[in-house]
Amino acid sequence: MFEAAEVGRKISKSDYKAQVPQLRSELLAVQQELRQASFPVIVLFAGVDTAGKGETANLLNEWMDPRWIVTRGYTDPSGEERERPRLWRYWRDLPPRGRLAMFLSAWYSSPVRDRVAGRIATAEFDSLLDQIAAFERALTDDGAIVVKFWMHLSKKAQKQRLKSFEQDPLQQWRVTKTQWKHWAMFNKFVSAADRAIRRTSTDSAPWHIVEGEDERYRTIVVATELRDAIRRGLERSAGASRRAHGARRKVRADGPVRAIRRIEREFNVLDNLDLSQKLDDDEFDRELAEQQARINVLQRRAGKKCVSTIIVFEGWDAAGKGGAIRRVTGSLDARDYQVIPIAAPTDEERSRHYLWRFWRHLSRAGRITIFDRSWYGRVLVERVEGFATEAEYMRAFGEITHFEEQLVSDGILLLKFWIHISKDEQLRRFRERSHTSYKQWKITDEDWRNRKRWPDYTIAVNDMVARTSTQIAPWTLVEGNDKNFARIKVLRTVADRLDERLKK
Amino acid sequence: MFEAAEVGRKISKSDYKAQVPQLRSELLAVQQELRQASFPVIVLFAGVDTAGKGETANLLNEWMDPRWIVTRGYTDPSGEERERPRLWRYWRDLPPRGRLAMFLSAWYSSPVRDRVAGRIATAEFDSLLDQIAAFERALTDDGAIVVKFWMHLSKKAQKQRLKSFEQDPLQQWRVTKTQWKHWAMFNKFVSAADRAIRRTSTDSAPWHIVEGEDERYRTIVVATELRDAIRRGLERSAGASRRAHGARRKVRADGPVRAIRRIEREFNVLDNLDLSQKLDDDEFDRELAEQQARINVLQRRAGKKCVSTIIVFEGWDAAGKGGAIRRVTGSLDARDYQVIPIAAPTDEERSRHYLWRFWRHLSRAGRITIFDRSWYGRVLVERVEGFATEAEYMRAFGEITHFEEQLVSDGILLLKFWIHISKDEQLRRFRERSHTSYKQWKITDEDWRNRKRWPDYTIAVNDMVARTSTQIAPWTLVEGNDKNFARIKVLRTVADRLDERLKK
Repeated sequence: MFEAAEVGRKISKSDYKAQVPQLRSELLAVQQELRQASFPVIVLFAGVDTAGKGETANLLNEWMDPRWIVTRGYTDPSGEERERPRLWRYWRDLPPRGRLAMFLSAWYSSPVRDRVAGRIATAEFDSLLDQIAAFERALTDDGAIVVKFWMHLSKKAQKQRLKSFEQDPLQQWRVTKTQWKHWAMFNKFVSAADRAIRRTSTDSAPWHIVEGEDERYRTIVVATELRDAIRRGLERSAGASRRAHGARRKVRADGPVRAIRRIEREFNVLDNLDLSQKLDDDEFDRELAEQQARINVLQRRAGKKCVSTIIVFEGWDAAGKGGAIRRVTGSLDARDYQVIPIAAPTDEERSRHYLWRFWRHLSRAGRITIFDRSWYGRVLVERVEGFATEAEYMRAFGEITHFEEQLVSDGILLLKFWIHISKDEQLRRFRERSHTSYKQWKITDEDWRNRKRWPDYTIAVNDMVARTSTQIAPWTLVEGNDKNFARIKVLRTVADRLDERLKK
Repeated sequence: MFEAAEVGRKISKSDYKAQVPQLRSELLAVQQELRQASFPVIVLFAGVDTAGKGETANLLNEWMDPRWIVTRGYTDPSGEERERPRLWRYWRDLPPRGRLAMFLSAWYSSPVRDRVAGRIATAEFDSLLDQIAAFERALTDDGAIVVKFWMHLSKKAQKQRLKSFEQDPLQQWRVTKTQWKHWAMFNKFVSAADRAIRRTSTDSAPWHIVEGEDERYRTIVVATELRDAIRRGLERSAGASRRAHGARRKVRADGPVRAIRRIEREFNVLDNLDLSQKLDDDEFDRELAEQQARINVLQRRAGKKCVSTIIVFEGWDAAGKGGAIRRVTGSLDARDYQVIPIAAPTDEERSRHYLWRFWRHLSRAGRITIFDRSWYGRVLVERVEGFATEAEYMRAFGEITHFEEQLVSDGILLLKFWIHISKDEQLRRFRERSHTSYKQWKITDEDWRNRKRWPDYTIAVNDMVARTSTQIAPWTLVEGNDKNFARIKVLRTVADRLDERLKK
């Protein structure tokens, strides 16, 4: 989930300066329009300490007209507040229709802190999160726009920031023992955050995870998303009677949006991978034998213990999914696995909920099911090709994590691989396929068409990782330019995760 | 919740015969239209054993074209099924778009049974229910119509039915030791059912609680509701692009609907009350002194223990809410309570979520807050007068139970009174008020207007009790024709519930 917010996104000073005037004037304009509107806007900032929650809220107050903004930060509840239900103080501060309110360290804060400190168990944490989701749904059902930003920093980046604050006389006050104590619990914090985001990212109030290291980047992202969210609200309330529900008009990609897309393409989880990694043939043969033997033994134990495994393969065309799958199945008894290739849905499948075709393939206990492409098609090809509306694929993120939660809580081991290759490597492989007679069937016009949408897919993949790489079902990104390297990474991951699962 | 399904609703043979031909032909007609539609219809039957789940499903299969209906009943999961996540078998059986499926003893069955038998704790039960709610939401978000019937029988009625089955050679097989064992756990079952219905009755998939004692009545209700749900789906998908979301066109009240409304007005929780109950003045004085003294002592203890109480008064105009409130406050120290009269919302209130105005009045710990009319206005006057759309008031039932859950789980004691008088008694009091100079301010044109809508209010009140009288916050219905009796019943209930709460 957070790996997509640790990719070093930044925006240059000149680019920033080019975008700010437009953004500021547009934010002011939507704010003025909002004053006449029949809905409030609720902006929530949460996330890692020092990732820029307060700075961003301050800046937005400076850019917009602060007379029509309410900004609220929360610390420990007062005596007055403790004597009422948990959400009372937030209800009290809700803005009226036509106003914008920014909430810092608000309703997510104490459940996450209580969980990190171990004061509440998972079940109670979940029930507080469900209570929050119901609260937010009541607001959005009533017309409110709820925009939630989770500001993230890597553990290393936070450490650097705390140190630099300590050396700055003007910022020193921000770093006390508490901050370092929080820092030491970083992993626990991230784990609780993962769960909180997973359970409360709904289609009507989704989380935006923002990389907080570069001040200019996070400012542009938050300001642009806020502007567009208010615009969507204004459009919806203007056209409510005319337009079908869910068929949102696409927001025009203007300066700031184009700048963000540029950064998203430039800095993302995929381009962070080191594609130069290689394995020579000798090493490959040795590793192949070793890992396949491990998987064979482990799977026989898994079969006896009735532990099922589901492996999802996604990746670019020609990335080598088929080859990797064959190396996995090569280690298995044919009775113990099935490979489900996912192409266009059949008539039967098309006439049901899109998840139905995956539910039907769940195997009996103790088997391995390999999906060659999967339910992620909804947020990849269907998103990019426009087969799924924005409302549909945003909803799909929640439905997918809910589906995967059920698998994992049923005891199934779930592995998800994205095999990545560079655009050049894909071209090389396409050409090779066209020229090799027994590989020609593998390359179609559609592959060339998909290749043209590479930038759109890059953004979709990054978003997919950001929203569905959860602690219960993380994505493994595989560097695929070298087939040897990729195949061994897949095999070793399968063996390691199986081993770990069987120890439970 | 179930008191509204124990009022003895029945339909006469002649009335039944008059409605059936139309209903049958219309069900067939909507079923044929459905075959071309882009959504499936999922009908769920749950509830008390022998309340007519199976019979109703059989009859619908007879009335409609069974070739296009899938009917599924579930018993203990098979080996195959146990090896997959809980919901797998239901996913497998989902109907394609254009078809209707009836599910008996389906996804609610094993969570409820597990809870009744104590095999799972409340937290796990809640999490299974939330999983079900997310499952149903995924279906309705995808366009499915989900219609849920909870067939209810009172404990006494179930006993009678089991006994009569035992004597009928054709039905004997239906009664085994298991049925009697279930019957013995009736109260536990109702308690688990209350929780299940409360947490899964959403605006897109609400529960319909159906009194199952009279076969003719339950048949007409289920068939009519099913017909209308399919019709709404057909209309929505035809007019999706034209109509605003949520602004459902009202279904024309035809024969069967009018018959049901007639029965709803005739048999309901209010008309079941014995309004002849009286208390003479001596008894009243004695009881008044005793109950007020009890409340005084108990409230002082509650104050020390920081236990807050919220008392809601609703009822007909001139039912005597004010008088009852004064008898409660008469026993209290003025610093310990506040009375919040709810009239039209202020500008500030109107510009926020309708629950905001109630959240703001929650008191500090240890006090009593009395609401003279309350958040139930949303499902009473706003419903009857058309200020809230059907979508809004249906959503309100869920929002209200969620709000009350938060109050109760925060330790607050919540009491809700509906004070009932007969229509004649109201007229008598209206006239008296018009003729008594110091009471004239109490009677306005609006009161006379409301009186004309008595039948609509009766249905709304019954629905309110059915959907919001939960085990954590039950309604107390007060027989109000005799003021002495009503006041003492209120006082005694307040004292008893306070006493019980303080013993915890």
